[in-house]
Amino acid sequence: MTTTQSPADSVAGTVKVLAFDIFGTVVDWHGSIVREMQALHPAVDADAFALAWRGGYQPAMARVMRGEQGWTLIDDLHRGILDEILSRFGLAHLSEPERRHLNRVWHRLDAWPDSVEGLTRLKTRFTITSLSNGNIGLLTNMAKRAGLPWDCVLSAEVFKAYKPDPATYLGVAKVFGLAPAEVALVATHHDDLAAARGCGLRTAYVERPHELGAAHPKDETPQPGNDLHATSLVDLARMLGC
Amino acid sequence: MTTTQSPADSVAGTVKVLAFDIFGTVVDWHGSIVREMQALHPAVDADAFALAWRGGYQPAMARVMRGEQGWTLIDDLHRGILDEILSRFGLAHLSEPERRHLNRVWHRLDAWPDSVEGLTRLKTRFTITSLSNGNIGLLTNMAKRAGLPWDCVLSAEVFKAYKPDPATYLGVAKVFGLAPAEVALVATHHDDLAAARGCGLRTAYVERPHELGAAHPKDETPQPGNDLHATSLVDLARMLGC
Repeated sequence: MTTTQSPADSVAGTVKVLAFDIFGTVVDWHGSIVREMQALHPAVDADAFALAWRGGYQPAMARVMRGEQGWTLIDDLHRGILDEILSRFGLAHLSEPERRHLNRVWHRLDAWPDSVEGLTRLKTRFTITSLSNGNIGLLTNMAKRAGLPWDCVLSAEVFKAYKPDPATYLGVAKVFGLAPAEVALVATHHDDLAAARGCGLRTAYVERPHELGAAHPKDETPQPGNDLHATSLVDLARMLGC
Repeated sequence: MTTTQSPADSVAGTVKVLAFDIFGTVVDWHGSIVREMQALHPAVDADAFALAWRGGYQPAMARVMRGEQGWTLIDDLHRGILDEILSRFGLAHLSEPERRHLNRVWHRLDAWPDSVEGLTRLKTRFTITSLSNGNIGLLTNMAKRAGLPWDCVLSAEVFKAYKPDPATYLGVAKVFGLAPAEVALVATHHDDLAAARGCGLRTAYVERPHELGAAHPKDETPQPGNDLHATSLVDLARMLGC
């Protein structure tokens, strides 16, 4: 007799550790930066500012991974991008303490409304960890403020490599003494999930249609490669029986 | 006017992060191993076995730090010591799965009765992190089982150095972007605290008179170098106004 197991049952039966992408997946970077800018500098186009800041992120990490600069934490990469874009938004006059405060907005990002409940439920059955390019201090400060109940805070900083480097995905499995297929990456980015899948991890996509702001909706069409496709972290918890 | 500030007020007013030694300070390694051995191998002198296993720990880390072997996780160091001592206790016949299970007892150590309440209270005012020579997977599994509510799991594994190497104590400050004096180490071992103090951290001693078992009480006389001396983690929380 052949029994057909659903992808959710297969993941629930095999996976021990859920590793979560953070920026966009668990927290709303665009909305948080927009709200902060509207409060501090209401004359600035906050939507364009948030997108410009985030737009420098992948190129900055790529420079580090090509060896053009030594290992550099995201806090410092964020600061470098900020210093580059400020004049474009009429903010070249910001003082050093003002720049430092603004740069820490990445430690103060708000969770999506379903994140705390979803993670809390998933934690009852799985070990839940961050797997973010954000540094450990940033992720810990963010979690404490937003109430994200991690079992463990893993970061590119632990592996000295940025996603999508295989050292990050395989690093999670190694930390827990598990096979790659016993770890699932949860993310709202298909490139991140594809890289994890290439390392043998299971993958769960989470819809975040407004990651780039309500004015720039994302295409949330399910992609065939992912094991699971959830509309939220609460939906993922439901699918996995938590 | 000169105001006299108590050491507890000084720590409470300055320190942002409390870093905790784990084995002995937060969890009862001796009692947990004794209970496991009494259940699995009742004929063995469990007290002597626990002390022999733990006795190999410092020398094994020292070999790593002298460069005699590459970076090695505590799970693997524990296993090496276990394999060495088994025959001395009439357990040379243990199979590979039995040895693997027994070695994981370090992931299953019980917390001292005051640890969860003390940490939960301290977490309301401070960022609380482990700073242990135990590996991240071990510390995370332990915390999940025992209910230890860490904000963050820091380990020698993150810094690729074992305590008392300065890279570990200074590493905590660096992770959080703090001065060393804004971090306090909490431990029941004076050598660990002295090394942290040498790096500029604040220090809190916690009495654990039965760390080595009821038959081998520790001298708990307060040492002058430490900022604080507490009888338990609940007592430390009380001293720090949590």
